Amino acid sequence: MFSDEYFMKIALQEAEAALEKDEVPIGCIIVSGNRIIARAHNLTETLNDVTAHAEMQAITAAANFLGGKYLQNCTMYVTLEPCVMCSGALNWSQISKLVIGARDEQRGFINKNLTLHPKTQVVTGVLENECSEIVKTFFKNKR
Amino acid sequence: MFSDEYFMKIALQEAEAALEKDEVPIGCIIVSGNRIIARAHNLTETLNDVTAHAEMQAITAAANFLGGKYLQNCTMYVTLEPCVMCSGALNWSQISKLVIGARDEQRGFINKNLTLHPKTQVVTGVLENECSEIVKTFFKNKR
Repeated sequence: MFSDEYFMKIALQEAEAALEKDEVPIGCIIVSGNRIIARAHNLTETLNDVTAHAEMQAITAAANFLGGKYLQNCTMYVTLEPCVMCSGALNWSQISKLVIGARDEQRGFINKNLTLHPKTQVVTGVLENECSEIVKTFFKNKR
Repeated sequence: MFSDEYFMKIALQEAEAALEKDEVPIGCIIVSGNRIIARAHNLTETLNDVTAHAEMQAITAAANFLGGKYLQNCTMYVTLEPCVMCSGALNWSQISKLVIGARDEQRGFINKNLTLHPKTQVVTGVLENECSEIVKTFFKNKR
């Protein structure tokens, strides 16, 4: 039951919540021991804040929940590959696992040759089509 | 009067405020039209949050002050070269100018071949010795 697809579907629900607010539809959850300890979606427009990416909010919320700043034994599920800023935050957090829906070839951290913490396992391509489609459709409708 | 050194001294006061809380002593201010619109220091331990770097807090505070997420006609003065996370946030913010005190060869963004927004002018080495010394002394005392 608790597969990567299961949790990515919940991250997608967060992306849909962003879409309803006319935000770039990216969603994210953090899971520890099959329990969701943080969920967030992009709020850069609503909050007028470039740092309000889904991942940043989720990292802060998860650390708050855990009472410590390191996200050991935690997995982040995010619908789009994190940007430079968010990959830097993930690196500091020493998170155990990062599961990415769709790649972001232009703005994502992977093509910038950035790496996460040596402890962090990275998985890509989980529900890739759904995660990619929601963002593509958003930008198509904006044009 | 309103030289880069003048404003970097105020960023150094923020670093000293961090030191008093036993935080890694890094301070930062954001200036617009010679007016300080945000000031912050590292609070990662106090807040249990890896994202609570001085720069991140200052970017959020400045955008809040301006009522918009882009930091046009703004200059950030920061005592230590920003990390990957903070450089990513600065990139999104399109800040006009970044003035750095001391370089951070290991964790700073420059040696990672990351660049900021094309609009952003970068100046390094303002009050370099003072900015470097406060961090070096902090880590020496920790050992």
